[in-house]
Amino acid sequence: MDIPVVENVLKLNDEIAAENRRRLGEAGVVCLNLVGSPGSGKTTLLEKTLDSLRGELRIGIITGDIATTRDAERLARFCDHVTQINTGGGCHLDANQVKQGMNNLPVEDLDLLIIENVGNLICPVGFDLGQDAKIGLFSVPEGEDKPAKHPRVVLESALLLLNKIDLLPHVPFSMDVFESDLRKLRDDVPVLKLSAVTGEGLDAWVDWVRQSSTTVKRDRAAATT
Amino acid sequence: MDIPVVENVLKLNDEIAAENRRRLGEAGVVCLNLVGSPGSGKTTLLEKTLDSLRGELRIGIITGDIATTRDAERLARFCDHVTQINTGGGCHLDANQVKQGMNNLPVEDLDLLIIENVGNLICPVGFDLGQDAKIGLFSVPEGEDKPAKHPRVVLESALLLLNKIDLLPHVPFSMDVFESDLRKLRDDVPVLKLSAVTGEGLDAWVDWVRQSSTTVKRDRAAATT
Repeated sequence: MDIPVVENVLKLNDEIAAENRRRLGEAGVVCLNLVGSPGSGKTTLLEKTLDSLRGELRIGIITGDIATTRDAERLARFCDHVTQINTGGGCHLDANQVKQGMNNLPVEDLDLLIIENVGNLICPVGFDLGQDAKIGLFSVPEGEDKPAKHPRVVLESALLLLNKIDLLPHVPFSMDVFESDLRKLRDDVPVLKLSAVTGEGLDAWVDWVRQSSTTVKRDRAAATT
Repeated sequence: MDIPVVENVLKLNDEIAAENRRRLGEAGVVCLNLVGSPGSGKTTLLEKTLDSLRGELRIGIITGDIATTRDAERLARFCDHVTQINTGGGCHLDANQVKQGMNNLPVEDLDLLIIENVGNLICPVGFDLGQDAKIGLFSVPEGEDKPAKHPRVVLESALLLLNKIDLLPHVPFSMDVFESDLRKLRDDVPVLKLSAVTGEGLDAWVDWVRQSSTTVKRDRAAATT
């Protein structure tokens, strides 16, 4: 008796995600959904990203957390269009929460909407929010085994990031294992290594964000002609 | 219509958790449920713990993961009684999985059962497994804001650990914020700081495990007289 209910929840989520996607597409907004463990560095990465792209792209942020508004406060120092969703214990953002978050933002005046999902490498991957691309974020101190243990985020992401490479000299981490596990799952996904704290590798990520904006809009235009 | 179903799932879980607790109690086994983010160092901590208590306590391990048997293989080098539960995508262990795991272990010949939950700071906290105590594990590179952002693990744990203190010189981390956020939620919970990799602070944790064995058994004896 449980399974149909779960299916309905997911079906309803997907319907609202499709609405979000349509609204964002019509407004010409590209949407990225950033997924990573608690403390993998999502907020720090977004602070640096907002700083790099200030004046170039009009960016909005929806940031999800179980409790506190700390991430939103941090990001609001770099961006006028930040909205926080407190899930009140919920382990992921769903499409309806993002829809409500979008209602707090001037969507039609944005180029890019970045969703910082709840810190969790598991549940957020299963919920479509209406994004154009999921981005999976790993970090060095989590260890080299995370791609193998969390295959779904590897399989569903358009880009994978390995953050905190400045800690490589200080922690046990086999880059060979990380890369070979990852490539067994996906040989096509780009992987960028960076440190949001030191700035190493950040330019390549910012370039990817810039280019994904262009690519998504070109693909949308091609799809409608 | 959804809420009753969710309640039933949780009710069924709690019933099986009570069965697990009864079986463990009758066998004189103390059970700890270790919860932490992916890559917070749960398996490394358990490797060191098993090594320290070898020949002193008879320990069994149930380790949960979404995919791979890597943790079980690592732990089996230090312990004869390790069983792995692959959740196949599930974000937490539930009581029925632990019941099945217990059926793979010589429960009646153990002193201590340690459950290494799925790497996730959120969902595992909500499911009673039949443990005597939950232990919440944070780690330094996750940042000082994790207690405030994950209050439930703070509120429900009998002990909190802060792992990877060897990384304090290399990452931004305010111990003052970590401690004051934590104390706002709980002024009574013990907090141990350690590095499973370097071994710093490990003795205090091993002592806590030893003492909790004694305390739980004394409390059980008191409850039945």
